[in-house]
Amino acid sequence: MEENRMTTSELQESIEQLVNEKRFGKIREVLTAHEPADIALFLGETDPQLLPILFRILPKELAAETFVEMDSNEQELLINAFSERELKDVVDELFVDDAVDIIEEMPANVVKRILRHTDPETRNSINEILRYPKDSAGSIMTTEYVTLRPNMTVSESFDKIRRTGVDKETIYTCYVTNQNRQLLGLVSVRDLLLSPYNTSINAIMATNIISVETLDDRENVANMFDKYDFISLPVVDKEYRLVGIVTFDDAIDVIQEEATEDIQKMSAMLPTDDNYFKTSAWKHAKNRIMWLLFLMLSATITGAIIQKYESAFTAIPILVSFIPMITGTGGNCGSQSSTMIIRGLALNEIKPRNMPKIILKELTIALICGTILSIVNGIRIFIMYQGSNPLFLSIVTGLSLIGTAIIAKMLGGTLPILAKICKLDPALMASPLITTIVDTCSVMIFFNIALWVMTWGIS
Amino acid sequence: MEENRMTTSELQESIEQLVNEKRFGKIREVLTAHEPADIALFLGETDPQLLPILFRILPKELAAETFVEMDSNEQELLINAFSERELKDVVDELFVDDAVDIIEEMPANVVKRILRHTDPETRNSINEILRYPKDSAGSIMTTEYVTLRPNMTVSESFDKIRRTGVDKETIYTCYVTNQNRQLLGLVSVRDLLLSPYNTSINAIMATNIISVETLDDRENVANMFDKYDFISLPVVDKEYRLVGIVTFDDAIDVIQEEATEDIQKMSAMLPTDDNYFKTSAWKHAKNRIMWLLFLMLSATITGAIIQKYESAFTAIPILVSFIPMITGTGGNCGSQSSTMIIRGLALNEIKPRNMPKIILKELTIALICGTILSIVNGIRIFIMYQGSNPLFLSIVTGLSLIGTAIIAKMLGGTLPILAKICKLDPALMASPLITTIVDTCSVMIFFNIALWVMTWGIS
Repeated sequence: MEENRMTTSELQESIEQLVNEKRFGKIREVLTAHEPADIALFLGETDPQLLPILFRILPKELAAETFVEMDSNEQELLINAFSERELKDVVDELFVDDAVDIIEEMPANVVKRILRHTDPETRNSINEILRYPKDSAGSIMTTEYVTLRPNMTVSESFDKIRRTGVDKETIYTCYVTNQNRQLLGLVSVRDLLLSPYNTSINAIMATNIISVETLDDRENVANMFDKYDFISLPVVDKEYRLVGIVTFDDAIDVIQEEATEDIQKMSAMLPTDDNYFKTSAWKHAKNRIMWLLFLMLSATITGAIIQKYESAFTAIPILVSFIPMITGTGGNCGSQSSTMIIRGLALNEIKPRNMPKIILKELTIALICGTILSIVNGIRIFIMYQGSNPLFLSIVTGLSLIGTAIIAKMLGGTLPILAKICKLDPALMASPLITTIVDTCSVMIFFNIALWVMTWGIS
Repeated sequence: MEENRMTTSELQESIEQLVNEKRFGKIREVLTAHEPADIALFLGETDPQLLPILFRILPKELAAETFVEMDSNEQELLINAFSERELKDVVDELFVDDAVDIIEEMPANVVKRILRHTDPETRNSINEILRYPKDSAGSIMTTEYVTLRPNMTVSESFDKIRRTGVDKETIYTCYVTNQNRQLLGLVSVRDLLLSPYNTSINAIMATNIISVETLDDRENVANMFDKYDFISLPVVDKEYRLVGIVTFDDAIDVIQEEATEDIQKMSAMLPTDDNYFKTSAWKHAKNRIMWLLFLMLSATITGAIIQKYESAFTAIPILVSFIPMITGTGGNCGSQSSTMIIRGLALNEIKPRNMPKIILKELTIALICGTILSIVNGIRIFIMYQGSNPLFLSIVTGLSLIGTAIIAKMLGGTLPILAKICKLDPALMASPLITTIVDTCSVMIFFNIALWVMTWGIS
């Protein structure tokens, strides 16, 4: 970072002092030396009373860029403090996709005020994007892109970019369409710059275009940016008409949000991309309690099974003390496998048709891991349980560990794929649910093996 | 997608047929209609014998772009099949950062062959990047960027871009440096296009530059792309000399890889970004067994505690059947909290100094969740355990659930932060380790509460 840039807390201190001294010109100078995202971060931590004052100090364009980066509650606070003139200034500078993001978070009366200040064309675009489902390509696209015609020359194209480019989200990929708005090809500014001025667009445009449809899943769209390294991706309707573009920065946001959502689902929570600190304890509890209740009640099945084998553990009480080890290992084995499969499915590296291959692989891994665990566990038992029949204990626990590892890795390897086939989110089949299911199985395996080995006459 | 594009398996079939018919011209036509990433995917699934033949059919530039997208074992297979001439053709077309990625995965003799075909300047760049630690900004940067001087005009800048741009990874952000290669500012092609030709770069360049240093953590660098929406980010040395740039596509790769690594660590595995299917069962088992062993042995502590309370559960055997519910709920509560904190730390939304706030929030959440769980559990016990003293059981399990929820959420909320403070990876403090620790605590809480409530005379 450069010297004249400060950390958020340094900025905080210096601005507070400047506010006290009423040196607003200097505040403007200090703030404008920062990126919009950093100014938004700083404004989010200042006194809400100061927020509108500091925001008004920013130059118009920077103010709009900063506004986009703020949290929705601060945006709402500002909109309520804005005059109609100020609101129009900010709204005028917004890109359509950013306006949609803001509108989605605002209460109805604020939305009305915002829409009143947008021109009819923009309002149409906003309403169109709002109509697409939350997780679709349409919902993350923008309608501000540069279109060219195939019969234009490079120099005419540059003229058009110079004329219209300032209002477009990206100018680096231009889309070539016919009169019916159907997508014919694309040209990058790089290609334009490296071609003679009189070349026709027709001659240099790429025609093997990868595009997405408005209703495609936004996660798949984001993964295409990862795969192909595009700056933007065209969104078309059923008639192959260009209706919008998705840009790489939105794809990065989607990738981060989807990873966060998956990680939260994998830990038995309802997914949210709200800030941890700005979410109330009640809201957090609400996101967590349903899974906790469901898993708690499911765990009672394991309890009922243990109860069924009361005779076994009252005869040999030491067996009970091995339960946490067996169930814990089963849970860990299962969550390892399910994690690999869930992530592989999310990144499109694993497909449902790969299931037989996965079963074979997980079975081999289970045998290797189970055997090693049994051996180490056997050694530990012979060292620590000299007085309580180590041979019996190590045979029972060893066989149980292998059996549990196999069941756990089979369930972990297949349940996420079955979820995907049933159109459920594979991330639901992660550690907590697998652990609960495996607990039940492993306790049954353990006591049945114990009862069986007891008949050998070594207990 | 456009009509003439096929899925990998369709492509497979049609190419196989064309190979049988020896129609190589047609194969070239079919393949060149696809993106390099898709061709690489297809080649990765074809017969290794056919691989060099199909690869040779590709036009030179597309061949190099496809080569970059392939898995390292296929790259190695190809390099071994290449003549010196063919190898030089591919190497000549590689960007420096891609060359580094390939070299890092190759055995020493192949690396020597590759380096022999690079010109001295590129070889120096490659060696320089190879010197940076694996997780640093330096290791993901490229040295191919456009530099301008402050006294150039816009039209001179376009001349330079046209002259040198073809070999640069991005031309959309140009970097302005002085004679000592120190970074003075940056200019986007957008700014150039929207300015008159005779404007001097000095007048339009941005000077508040966000840059990173060569040794900065690559995850932080990637998060800056998420925050600021840059196309590229300059990498400088201690003397503020420009040594490279990181582009958004590399940032996307890092974001995906870091999310995968975190998810794997959070499920008690050594992280790897190798393909699931191309990794042998032995390698998978190796990545998983250390944590399984460690957690299995840790779980024996819980076992030992249970053994200590043998008198309690032989007196009231039904208590044993509640152990899975108590430990399971504790594990789930703990992993919910640790997940929120680990992800928040990874995205820089949570800082170690927020610990007091987090403890307070998690404590409130634990009380809310614990109380609800206790009530539901109490109702269940009164319905299902009419014959076995439901009052005693529901008090013991209810208090245990609240106590366990508090301990679990405290541990889950603080251990990842303590790990971060101790310069360990917070992702290690995820579900499996938290579950094992919480198991021990919850069993102790449960039996102590049981023994205490027994003294009330209601058992």
